[in-house]
Amino acid sequence: MRIIIVGASGTMGTYLTCTLEKEHQIVKVSTTSGGIPTDITSPESIENMYRKAGAFDALICTAGPTYVGPWKNMTHREFQKGLEGKLMGQINLVLIGQHFINPNGSFSLITGGLTREPQRNFANASAANGAIEAFVRAAAIELENGIRINAVSPNVIENSPQYFPYFPGEMPTTMKALEFGFRKSVFGSGTGRVIVV
Amino acid sequence: MRIIIVGASGTMGTYLTCTLEKEHQIVKVSTTSGGIPTDITSPESIENMYRKAGAFDALICTAGPTYVGPWKNMTHREFQKGLEGKLMGQINLVLIGQHFINPNGSFSLITGGLTREPQRNFANASAANGAIEAFVRAAAIELENGIRINAVSPNVIENSPQYFPYFPGEMPTTMKALEFGFRKSVFGSGTGRVIVV
Repeated sequence: MRIIIVGASGTMGTYLTCTLEKEHQIVKVSTTSGGIPTDITSPESIENMYRKAGAFDALICTAGPTYVGPWKNMTHREFQKGLEGKLMGQINLVLIGQHFINPNGSFSLITGGLTREPQRNFANASAANGAIEAFVRAAAIELENGIRINAVSPNVIENSPQYFPYFPGEMPTTMKALEFGFRKSVFGSGTGRVIVV
Repeated sequence: MRIIIVGASGTMGTYLTCTLEKEHQIVKVSTTSGGIPTDITSPESIENMYRKAGAFDALICTAGPTYVGPWKNMTHREFQKGLEGKLMGQINLVLIGQHFINPNGSFSLITGGLTREPQRNFANASAANGAIEAFVRAAAIELENGIRINAVSPNVIENSPQYFPYFPGEMPTTMKALEFGFRKSVFGSGTGRVIVV
């Protein structure tokens, strides 16, 4: 299977690339380093990426920039970061990518526990996650040619200990559980699902 | 109680204004007709509205423009309608309004059943709803001075029969149930809740 991984140089993307490239052909996409450089906040950049990537069977996105910071600094300007990044960036990967993906392909987007379990400083990520999860359910009934779409929702991940203090009482998601969530989305048959890992 | 109703000239806003103005002082806000004219897609317009409205105890928003139409026409341009309207418009009402609302006041936003029960043509509204519901949970733990925030989530409403064909099998929400949802949000004690009516 030919799989595009967006965010391939990040913590999650690096892990998924390492494990999946043993069995599949991986097309790496990241902001700057390695693979096809792409700015997911730009529809033009996304379209260029798909033209360079060529035919593919699955897209995994682990990239989702959001604003993290004190509520008292939050205005519409800070809020745009998550709207243009994790929210519209991922939605554009689907709206544009549907015209490039092979029949019976799949899109696997990233959300996270903040949809239902908010934490201080992360309201922007909560909103982006909630939008993506509802979008995934809606897109699943619109996509044609057997194309599926799911979201994978981890908690704070074990390989990002710098975030642990912001998530008191939240059991970190292991990289193995994250991997299995994406495996279920890519290789399973479900669509319109939020796969909580 | 002094209550701002945004979307006061719409189907839901007109009904809520009629019933609540028997007991409370209502400040009507709508795009063009009656009350304080406001464009909720503009942070400047929202701030001007709050300056004109003066001190208030509760804000009810029933305004939420989104793109409704075939998936095959959907690009990032169509998608912006819901992002700037129902999503960021309502979030800006809170981010800006928190500096104007009285202590122990409340924000009541509008979402809808499309968050969990998608329908063809409404993916943009689904995403906006999902974002607002997650935002409400996140904002509830950030707002200070006893300020509360909830979302009211109706199905297709009984006074909008023109939408019934798009919602097969969905029991319309009565105007009375909608009113009671907003009453629970405004006059109850809950915060961070999605009140399904």
